[in-house]
Amino acid sequence: MRNIKLILQYDGSRYHGWQVQPGRPTVCGTLLRRLRIILNEDISLSASSRTDSGVHARCQVANFKTAAPIPVKNLRRALNGLLPDDIVCRGASVVPDKFNARFAVSRRYRYTIRNSSCKYPFDIPYSYFHPRALDAGLMKESSLHLLGPHDFSAFHSSAGEKINRVRNIINIDVVKRGGYVYIDVEADGFLTHMVRIIAGTLLEAGRGRFSPSDIKKILAGRDRRNAGPTLPARGLCLMRVKY
Amino acid sequence: MRNIKLILQYDGSRYHGWQVQPGRPTVCGTLLRRLRIILNEDISLSASSRTDSGVHARCQVANFKTAAPIPVKNLRRALNGLLPDDIVCRGASVVPDKFNARFAVSRRYRYTIRNSSCKYPFDIPYSYFHPRALDAGLMKESSLHLLGPHDFSAFHSSAGEKINRVRNIINIDVVKRGGYVYIDVEADGFLTHMVRIIAGTLLEAGRGRFSPSDIKKILAGRDRRNAGPTLPARGLCLMRVKY
Repeated sequence: MRNIKLILQYDGSRYHGWQVQPGRPTVCGTLLRRLRIILNEDISLSASSRTDSGVHARCQVANFKTAAPIPVKNLRRALNGLLPDDIVCRGASVVPDKFNARFAVSRRYRYTIRNSSCKYPFDIPYSYFHPRALDAGLMKESSLHLLGPHDFSAFHSSAGEKINRVRNIINIDVVKRGGYVYIDVEADGFLTHMVRIIAGTLLEAGRGRFSPSDIKKILAGRDRRNAGPTLPARGLCLMRVKY
Repeated sequence: MRNIKLILQYDGSRYHGWQVQPGRPTVCGTLLRRLRIILNEDISLSASSRTDSGVHARCQVANFKTAAPIPVKNLRRALNGLLPDDIVCRGASVVPDKFNARFAVSRRYRYTIRNSSCKYPFDIPYSYFHPRALDAGLMKESSLHLLGPHDFSAFHSSAGEKINRVRNIINIDVVKRGGYVYIDVEADGFLTHMVRIIAGTLLEAGRGRFSPSDIKKILAGRDRRNAGPTLPARGLCLMRVKY
């Protein structure tokens, strides 16, 4: 049995997220169908991140074990030949048996806000449009309160489960460039909708509804109702995974 | 009556081109419906270029005459409020009565080829994918034979009409950058599918099927069958219009 690692890119617009769901198109399901054809074998796929419905990936990492003898170079080509245009395999390689894509050290996500008086028709599926000017300096200052390990209950779409909500944000940055505000968040892991709620909260800071010190209080209060809105999935993209 | 000029951007994927066609979604038809609501008046719209089905525009110029008193600033806002996400009005201004968007001095189009071993899932609607390496130097050298006024019958999707097929290419350039080859063509006007056939012919040059001097012969021969294929509409975008 070889352990094979895949580097994947996808436009998540058409998919109900990564995770297989019966009767709905998912990224993992779409890949599995093609892999089973190529390998002539039933496999299971492990991934670094279970991206939500509509979320994109420029770099998703997955792996699977197989007894099929196909060379990895041919595997990549065969897979891209069968996949729809919105999912691409950028690389396939044999990795040590113990590698599991799930156990990443960190993941980096980017949330993209189109911040200009006009929409741009070519990035509608990949950004959230906010026409009034945002103060990226205030957004960045606010974001720094989220750095480090914290209980992120205030930034979690809760279904009320009692789980450990401590995550460690290793890097966070807000950059304004060419009509866009980019929010980059790298953490050891993320709660449900965490980046989208962080983005919605920083957006409120950028338009002056929250001050940077409010962000500190929202975090400490651990109450989802105090944070900003959950921004739409289409602005979110998985950018990098570290092992 | 005021004469109002509009600067428009659109993702042409969903539209059967600029020109109104009964029963089909078109860019002009979509705009006219909204303008008639806003102005409460029946107007007609003149444009710099009748972009084909599936072709995009980063800068299309149009104009119309109206007796409605709405300030142009409000017009832009009202129009963007009613338009679907894939058409955006970037500007509206009052221009001299004699201005007609049709009578541009030149139009510049860009054809985008994704030239990399892998597709990129985020640009599928805006580029043509060619996986084998293209020699952009050869493409550029070939393109220079097309500069100036010529009979472009070889680069025309003919329905056999007898028309004047002389057009003047003012600028042409081929640039390879970051996994893309961009073909930019500025001319006083274009024949049907002219840029897409030029792009298909230069692509053949880039992969060694045509030499630069072949391009000269193809042009002189005025026979569509000698040129390269018509590349798909999705890679084509109207970039700039000069008056």
